[in-house]
Amino acid sequence: MFEWLRSLRKKVGKLVLPDREERSARNKNKINLKPYTPEPKAYLGQLAYLLLSNFEILTNELKYAPTTQYKAELSEAAAKSFEKYRTVSKKLSGLGVDVTDSMDPFTERIDTFHSRTSGVDWYEAIIKVYLVSGLLDDFYKRLAVGLNSELRDSVEKALSDKTFEKFAQKVITEGKAMNPELDSRLALWGRRLMGDVLLEVRAAFDNRKLAGIDKSASLSAEQERKVNLESYSKIEPLISEMIAAHSLRMDSIGLAA
Amino acid sequence: MFEWLRSLRKKVGKLVLPDREERSARNKNKINLKPYTPEPKAYLGQLAYLLLSNFEILTNELKYAPTTQYKAELSEAAAKSFEKYRTVSKKLSGLGVDVTDSMDPFTERIDTFHSRTSGVDWYEAIIKVYLVSGLLDDFYKRLAVGLNSELRDSVEKALSDKTFEKFAQKVITEGKAMNPELDSRLALWGRRLMGDVLLEVRAAFDNRKLAGIDKSASLSAEQERKVNLESYSKIEPLISEMIAAHSLRMDSIGLAA
Repeated sequence: MFEWLRSLRKKVGKLVLPDREERSARNKNKINLKPYTPEPKAYLGQLAYLLLSNFEILTNELKYAPTTQYKAELSEAAAKSFEKYRTVSKKLSGLGVDVTDSMDPFTERIDTFHSRTSGVDWYEAIIKVYLVSGLLDDFYKRLAVGLNSELRDSVEKALSDKTFEKFAQKVITEGKAMNPELDSRLALWGRRLMGDVLLEVRAAFDNRKLAGIDKSASLSAEQERKVNLESYSKIEPLISEMIAAHSLRMDSIGLAA
Repeated sequence: MFEWLRSLRKKVGKLVLPDREERSARNKNKINLKPYTPEPKAYLGQLAYLLLSNFEILTNELKYAPTTQYKAELSEAAAKSFEKYRTVSKKLSGLGVDVTDSMDPFTERIDTFHSRTSGVDWYEAIIKVYLVSGLLDDFYKRLAVGLNSELRDSVEKALSDKTFEKFAQKVITEGKAMNPELDSRLALWGRRLMGDVLLEVRAAFDNRKLAGIDKSASLSAEQERKVNLESYSKIEPLISEMIAAHSLRMDSIGLAA
């Protein structure tokens, strides 16, 4: 008769938090990303396509700009952010590789990411670029640690332009002042975006490499799962820092992270 | 019984060419546009918005670029053409006027023009920007004759960048090689665009000023018509030169003008 209660208890049991032992085992050490930086061609190729697609997404919003002023400012911010792409693509050419060839292996993954995270209106679109390029610029700057110092300096310098960031902060702040109901919708949207970016960041890593397992080894499903857990644990400090930076970005536009 | 034939003859009669006397009265003198150059704020304001909307239209095509290579090249061409806008908007700021205020009186007319002339696919969109900005850059360079020499030089220099022109020629030439049936469609489209640009150019002039009639004078419909004819006759040499340049532009992409 109380069978249903017992079965319910079992289910509830599954949702209990891990015990303190397990939680305190979380990795809090600073991660050294150096061994995980991809080869320069792959690093610059995916960064280049991220920046190129960023330009496409930004400029696609021009037609929705509510005023000529916004249209002009967004154009300026887009043109400035295109200069990031220019820097990266020049570095690729400097390595003697074709820019398009270097981007092509990543276009599908990145296009899919973007189509999964396209906002439904002007505000969601602006905040998307603000948060996503904030997170990804941050990530790629950290990952640049494994490049030679000349490449690293160029990339860090290119990624540090803040024209769009300032524009986005202005748009969102002004928008929220006019439509207070934007607040909760945009806060939700911001959280959702962070989740998607973290998945994208995880996808950029090779789990076996992170876990120190030979890529030709054949693993059982159980071993594979352990490798994944091991590797996620390894990048946990990075994820945690990225989330903290994201929260600051949300704060600066008055949204609860 | 032959009533229908007579009525047909009457209609045909209406289509006969004007006699030689009237045709030879056409104005073949070079037009001096100097008196018709708008005040710097109005000149730069409409040019600025044309260039800004050009950037919007160009970048809106990025999502339709058939290859990553085209996407990167179109982005580069768009960023380059945005520099034209930057130059013009800096000149406006230099005159101590607000850039947005200077553009606002022209946004509606120019947006209407663009919405009337948006192509149905990637090729029509590219050829539109190629031909329309070819015609309009040409027109504004001629009209710059009434500005002071410093402004004129900056405008002429800014408008002379050919990055997009070369890109468009490549896209159309490659496109026609792959789809020979594009030829006749694009030729038709090119002619249609020229017609629309000429209407836009006429709208940029004050007919009464062209005809030397005081703008406060009150005219009958018949007088008004004469003023319009007079003014069109005055800009005829300009129109004729613009058409010739347009034909060369069509030629260079292998289309019959």
